[in-house]
Order: sequence, then structure tokens, then C-alpha cells
Amino acid sequence: MKKEFIVTPWEVTGKINYNKLIKEFGISPLANLPKEFQRNLLFRRGIVYGHRDFENILNAIKNKQKFVMMTGLMPSGKFHFGHALLVKQILFYQSLGAKLYIAVADLEAYNTRNPNLEELRKVAIEEYLINYIALGLKPKNYDFYFQSARSKDAKKSNAYYNLASKVSRYVTFNEVKAIYGSITPGKLNSALLQVSDMLHPQLKDFEGKINVLVPVGSDQDPHIKLARDIIQRIKDYRFSQLSSSYHMFMPGLKGDKMSSSDSTSYIALTNSSEEAANKIRKYAFSGGQATIQEHRKKGGNPDVDVSYQWLRMFFEENDKKLQNIYHNYKSGKLLTSELKQILIDKLTIFLKNHHRQREKAKKLVSKFI
Amino acid sequence: MKKEFIVTPWEVTGKINYNKLIKEFGISPLANLPKEFQRNLLFRRGIVYGHRDFENILNAIKNKQKFVMMTGLMPSGKFHFGHALLVKQILFYQSLGAKLYIAVADLEAYNTRNPNLEELRKVAIEEYLINYIALGLKPKNYDFYFQSARSKDAKKSNAYYNLASKVSRYVTFNEVKAIYGSITPGKLNSALLQVSDMLHPQLKDFEGKINVLVPVGSDQDPHIKLARDIIQRIKDYRFSQLSSSYHMFMPGLKGDKMSSSDSTSYIALTNSSEEAANKIRKYAFSGGQATIQEHRKKGGNPDVDVSYQWLRMFFEENDKKLQNIYHNYKSGKLLTSELKQILIDKLTIFLKNHHRQREKAKKLVSKFI
Repeated sequence: MKKEFIVTPWEVTGKINYNKLIKEFGISPLANLPKEFQRNLLFRRGIVYGHRDFENILNAIKNKQKFVMMTGLMPSGKFHFGHALLVKQILFYQSLGAKLYIAVADLEAYNTRNPNLEELRKVAIEEYLINYIALGLKPKNYDFYFQSARSKDAKKSNAYYNLASKVSRYVTFNEVKAIYGSITPGKLNSALLQVSDMLHPQLKDFEGKINVLVPVGSDQDPHIKLARDIIQRIKDYRFSQLSSSYHMFMPGLKGDKMSSSDSTSYIALTNSSEEAANKIRKYAFSGGQATIQEHRKKGGNPDVDVSYQWLRMFFEENDKKLQNIYHNYKSGKLLTSELKQILIDKLTIFLKNHHRQREKAKKLVSKFI
Repeated sequence: MKKEFIVTPWEVTGKINYNKLIKEFGISPLANLPKEFQRNLLFRRGIVYGHRDFENILNAIKNKQKFVMMTGLMPSGKFHFGHALLVKQILFYQSLGAKLYIAVADLEAYNTRNPNLEELRKVAIEEYLINYIALGLKPKNYDFYFQSARSKDAKKSNAYYNLASKVSRYVTFNEVKAIYGSITPGKLNSALLQVSDMLHPQLKDFEGKINVLVPVGSDQDPHIKLARDIIQRIKDYRFSQLSSSYHMFMPGLKGDKMSSSDSTSYIALTNSSEEAANKIRKYAFSGGQATIQEHRKKGGNPDVDVSYQWLRMFFEENDKKLQNIYHNYKSGKLLTSELKQILIDKLTIFLKNHHRQREKAKKLVSKFI
């Protein structure tokens, strides 16, 4: 059961030790954040736990300067709560005044997965964008784009693709291999586009030199490091150094990785509340004991219990209530079935509301692209 | 002196045996061309000697269908008569009604040579485009573009860069290595852009499915073969197979390769007629004998004589006169100094006229970009 601790961009297995990650990856812990961040559970509870050069973003916020939050999405599979966790973070930055750059990595998906751009665009809009809007994305101060069609303004498109092309001068095969574990022309091309995604907001045809934050899971850090290195190598344009933040992964239902390719590992935001409840009852890995008697005596382990972790990371905003759940489960007062029911009740309310929001979002989507 | 016969895209040395090229590269000889081709010395004298799928182009001409002639230029160094030889071919296709696509490989130059796009654009216009116009490029039915800024129409730019990116799915590192001899991310990127240069005229945002001809030296054949292979691999768009033609290299002054990096190997079209005459006298490799007496007795060898070859390939349009020069030189009646003087006289007239045309072209250049 216990696997060796491995985090690379292409493999996340075993129980993740975020302190070890901070040490091994040279990421700084996020601490002493201003109070607007403390109000957000992701920061308050350390779910966003580390950073590189985050001070630049804090300064921009403090001095009311513009900044950019850049993220990407891979249009494949169902939009699940792992995705929604990142969207909550994105929306928080939008509320702080960040301009959002959201790249649909359709060319990356074309080159490494499904060679059908039309299908990929459909998934991006119907599975991803509509859920973003339903979760609260505002139709202002953002740039949602496809890698395959950067802009309706040719100057912008040319600048974006140019930058991807220029980056090829400043990168080595070994660096790209270090990101993906192996290398193909398609993967190299994807890496170049990703660097351009992260750097191009600073070009003069976009925002001009500006602080850019990219929130990622630690598995994506090699991409961040490559982009940061390239900023120092490119001579014909002076970029501000890229900032990044690192968040924990929401665990999959069975306690390991949440994966779009395994429907027993996630709950999709389009699942019905009945489907969701069944999945929780059937698959959610429990930190409880084998029998009620034993559980009452020894107590459960909330730290490995997926239902508790989902409440902590997403569904229970109230710290006091969360703390009670933690202690009651640990003491054995709260049974696994009761803990699961707390989550199911939250999920039911969330999904019913979300499905209403999705219907509204479908009517709004044309405003966003 | 005699080198092994080597033709690869990165090395052209030794005396070139075009028949051997045809055999080794699987190129077909160009024969039985219609009379409009016979009127052009490049075709009449076999300087354009081979092809792949040229029938498609001949059929398009015969049936008065549109077709595209695609070529590229590397904006580096001086524009010399080796370049002018290709431009003559390009202009011939324009006169036949082809739509010209002329790509400035500025991103390729950025990635493999000089990382300064501004400088590269300046060279492309001042050294190349102005000479194209002075040589007779008409401001109609052509598309002169920079790889770094494909179009002012975003749809077109997106389609062009997209295609380059998509090609990365269909190519292997070994194929690109076979083209360049070695491989770097920059070279891979250049190869992808080159394939897009050759294929994109057929996209719906450009001409739609159409016959495209790419005239090249045989050293560029690996690029052609790669583009032709990719046409067969791409599934989401049906391209017509690419046609190509193969022309001989104009020999450098000293009898080996003409190279922009060796000013004693070429005459630039901006050289004065005095500079040109001096270069011919000083450097032009001669097929004559060591002394006048010996020359009168044994005769010269026009087949290796650079002055004769330049007359044949570029400066003497009249077949009868060329034949006389050939026989008189071979018989010893014509001395090397006299042969050189024939070329110098032709060059002087050409350059004086060309410099006047360049002044006019400078005023017209804004119409072309």
C-alpha cells in the first residue's frame, strides 16, 4: 500500500510530504500573508503552501498595481472537484483585481493526446469554461484563449507564436526531457507554447512588463523553473521574473491521485447529487476503524480520511465547524458513515446550486469567448 | 583539389554530378517540357534539371488552374548572383500566372544565427526584397511574408502557426536530424516552420487545396521529402501532394561553393561594375591553360570554367552566341582573358542597369509589404 514518495510532473504517487517538497524543490513556504489572503480558506489552511517570488505579487496588491494571474487547462475528460479547487483560487485572484490569462492547451492536447482540435475546443468550452462561469468567473479583466488561436488581433497572435518559437533558441533537449520524463517533437513544442503562455502577458502587445503569477501543483514546477531560466537567457526583451505559488492536490476518492481517466477517483461537477453520494459511500477512502466498536475506542484518522480532506479543502468554510469534525472523528465520537453524510449533505447542496448556475452559464458563455 | 562528391543540406562540396543526384535522391529528370518553358534558359539549358510531381504543375498551367510557387529566403549576408538565379526562376513562374509565396525565414535565422529580429527584417528588405523588385517582381499575385509575422489577418496567422505546431505530432527527431546533420530545439522549430511554409498555402484561410511547387537546390530535398511525408501522415486535413523542382548551383568564383560568408566566392548585386570586374579577373576559376601558347594548342575547358558557366547560367541568353563561345574556348581560339572580358562586359551592363532599377525599387518597396 505505502508507495515511495514520488512527485514529478508525469507521476504523483504515494502520500505527499509537502515539507519535503519545499526542501527538495527549493520552494519557499507561504507565510505572513496579509489579511485578505487569511480570509480565503485555501491560504488560511495552507492548501496553497509554497511560492517563488510571491513578494512581487503581494507588493503589486499592496501598491494597487496591475498584475496577471496566468493558468492553463488541458481540455480532456470531465471537470471534477480537483479542477474546481484551482478555479476557486483563480476566482480569488480575480476578486483581488488580477487580470486572468487562461490558456486552453488545445495544441498541447493535439500533439500529445487527441489530434482533433474541433473536439478539443468543444470539451474546453462545455466541460471547462461553463464550469468556470458557473463557479463565478466574471466577464471582465480576463483573457480566455486557445493556444491554437491566440487572438483575433494578428499583432497579438504573431507576438505570442513568435515568442514560443524564439524560446527554442534558449532551451535544451535535456531541460524538456527533465519536465516530461521523455521527449518527442510534440512534447518539445508543447513546452515552448507553455513558456510563451507564461511569458507573453509581458510583451508590449499585451500588458507590457508586469508581475505574473502562475499557481501550480508542485508537479508543474519544472515548467516554472524552465520559464524562469528562459527569462534570464532571452536578451532581446527584459521580462520581470515570474512568480509562482504551489497548492496541494485534492486527494482522489480512493486516497490516491484524482485522475480524469478513472471515474472512481473523482466526482464531476456534472454528476447528479445521487451519483455523488453513491461514489462517496462506495469509494471514499476512510480513516475510520474496521468496526463501530473499534472506532469508538480508538477513534478515526482524519488526516488520511478523504471525506474529511474534501471538507477541509473545499466544502466546509467554517473553521470552527471543521475543527469540531476533526476532533469528533479523531475521538471516535463521529463515525465514518456520519462523516461521509456531512460531506454528502454539503455536496448535495453544492451540486444542486451548481447545476442551476451551469444552466445560466450556458447562456452567458458566448460573452466569454 | 578533387573532393569526394558530397551533397547534404549543410554541405555542398566537390564537383557536383547531377545525374548521380537524380539516381541517389530519387528525383525524376525534367524532360519534354512545353514550349513556354523552352523559351526560358534555365529550363532550356537544363539548369533546372529534376523534379518530383512536376506533372501536377504542368497540368495546372495547361488547364489554366491556379497554382502556387513557394520559396523562402534566409536574411543573411549580401544578395549575390546565386540568389539572383533563383529569383529569375521565381519571376518566370510569376509570368506564368503562379501565385508566389515568399517566406522570409527570420525566425529560423533568429533560432540558428542572429537573435535580432529587427536587424534580420532590415536585411530581408534592403538586401533581398529590393533586389527582387529590381529584378522584376511584380506587385501582384504574391505574398511576401516574415515567419515572425505571418499576416495582418489573425485567422491566417493562427492557421499558419497552428500548422507548424501540429506538424510536431507527425515528425520524429531522426527525420529532423537527417535534414540538418545534428539537432537542437531551434533546428526542430525551424523545420516545423518550414513545413508550414510549404503546406499552409493549401489551408482554407489561404488558397484552399491547390498545387504547390517548391523550387530548390538538391541540398534542400530532405525538407521536401519531410513535407511530402507529413502530408501523408496528417489526418485532419487533405493536402494535395507537394511538387518540387531541382536546380543546379551557380558555381562560386573560385569554382567551389558560392557562399555569403566568403566575399571572394560571389559578386553581390550591389557591387560596382569595377569591383565585379576586379573579382572576375582576380578570382574566377579558369579552364584555360597555363600559357597562351599551350592554350592555343590544347584549348580550354569551358565545363569547369566559371566565367563560361556564369554566361551559360545567367548572362548569355543567346544560345548561338553561347555555343560559339564554348567552341572557340575549347578550340583555343578564345583566350581566358578574352572569355573573362565577355563576362565582364555583360556584368557591367547588367549591374549598371540593376543599380538604376534598385533606386526605383527603393521607392516601390512599401507597396510590397
